Amino acid sequence: MTAGATAGTQDINTDDLATFAAFAGRLAEASGEVIRRYFRRDVAIDTKPDATPVTIADREAEAAMRALIEQRYPDHGIFGEEHGAVRTDAEWVWVLDPVDGTKAFACGKPNFGTLIALAHRGTPVVGVIDQPISGERWLGVDGRPTTLNGQPIRTRPCCRLAEAWLGATNPEMFAGDDLAPYQRLRQTVYTAHFGGECYAYGLLAAGHMDLILEADMQPYDYCALVPVVAGAGGRITDWQGGPLGLNGGGRTLAAGDPALHAAALDVLASAT
Amino acid sequence: MTAGATAGTQDINTDDLATFAAFAGRLAEASGEVIRRYFRRDVAIDTKPDATPVTIADREAEAAMRALIEQRYPDHGIFGEEHGAVRTDAEWVWVLDPVDGTKAFACGKPNFGTLIALAHRGTPVVGVIDQPISGERWLGVDGRPTTLNGQPIRTRPCCRLAEAWLGATNPEMFAGDDLAPYQRLRQTVYTAHFGGECYAYGLLAAGHMDLILEADMQPYDYCALVPVVAGAGGRITDWQGGPLGLNGGGRTLAAGDPALHAAALDVLASAT
Repeated sequence: MTAGATAGTQDINTDDLATFAAFAGRLAEASGEVIRRYFRRDVAIDTKPDATPVTIADREAEAAMRALIEQRYPDHGIFGEEHGAVRTDAEWVWVLDPVDGTKAFACGKPNFGTLIALAHRGTPVVGVIDQPISGERWLGVDGRPTTLNGQPIRTRPCCRLAEAWLGATNPEMFAGDDLAPYQRLRQTVYTAHFGGECYAYGLLAAGHMDLILEADMQPYDYCALVPVVAGAGGRITDWQGGPLGLNGGGRTLAAGDPALHAAALDVLASAT
Repeated sequence: MTAGATAGTQDINTDDLATFAAFAGRLAEASGEVIRRYFRRDVAIDTKPDATPVTIADREAEAAMRALIEQRYPDHGIFGEEHGAVRTDAEWVWVLDPVDGTKAFACGKPNFGTLIALAHRGTPVVGVIDQPISGERWLGVDGRPTTLNGQPIRTRPCCRLAEAWLGATNPEMFAGDDLAPYQRLRQTVYTAHFGGECYAYGLLAAGHMDLILEADMQPYDYCALVPVVAGAGGRITDWQGGPLGLNGGGRTLAAGDPALHAAALDVLASAT
């Protein structure tokens, strides 16, 4: 089999993709083993130079994943939140956030997750959202249906903003130029719910939420989400509708229904 | 045994309390059986006259609990969110919120909970926070240590606001006269995390969070929290430091460390 799935990834062998997806699952298991040892234990919380929190669980979980990648795919690049970037000009780059939602982790809330993506020439083609406490694992692979613990899932139809459930990790993230677009969108939707972290994207992919807006995102925060959302029938881009890849960052918009995504983009544009 | 535990409840037989606490567990099981059938199913969401959402899961779970109470303790009162109040002048009144965090439930987030309290002459003396998806159950009984799935838990020491983790279900709940006190407190703490619902009180009782501020609370939202927080060493009152009981409602402040609670009360008073 050599059939590629979507524009830009025609030169990917699907057998390779399946192998990489299975390996991503092994990375998630290794990360989860570390994280479960520290969950709801009294771990010290350090503050990084960018003012975000980090714990020993973040650092050890990423180190465990990096060791496996270095052993199996020494020519692949790695871009991790805690231990930096190597070989990011490689054809394949693993993008790792061992604990996305470190604050939720520190509060003992099981809605943080390990995010694992594989980017091909900058485009995410494999994505994992792994919740190691509840045992839920979302897997997105370019050209294949997204799965939750092996079962295919789909987003739900919702094309009207007035009926949409909006999620965001924390409304405090919308400041400066990001505030007015957020407020405009918030006013148009049915309701909002906060505190979702990456888990909310899994819920959107499974048809339980409609829209997620975020600001101040890094590639390790969103690369894994791209194949998960797209493979479930949804759409995820930046606030201008542009693709999300290894190079970039900032503001993201995800919707379960592509028509809703278009409507939300219009609202954001009108307030920018 | 007839020894009462705290002021105001000296006339309660502790054997009776243990029996009531065991019965509260049966109520939680009955509620959970209903809720699990509807979780992440496509249930219709109705909007009540007070603009809050409700589903068939809320209504059926409360009905299941009320039927058990009517059968076992027909002279006890019942005050439920969905099906109203009967005999609230009785010595013992059960206070029920079948799905606290209906929005979280509707989004498929397992941090909603069934709240069950037993009030004696208006004072909550038994409280249950039950999360039927994760299988976590917090039990608070007047004069006894709070437990999580049978294991005693304690709040953590944290007497300085600058080190405190603050939780709130949704910062949008702070409007009008509630906004300035919230903002003042938010500025004094180390960090905030939203979307906790009643689950956050269980985490505070278990020593993972320090402070929770809420507004616009009804007795069925907070009565169950009182014995859970108090029995773990914490303190929960209204924003003036007054006790929370069957009669009342509005604004609540919970802290794991009583010294932190006092400091937070001072901040709220300074902004009121």
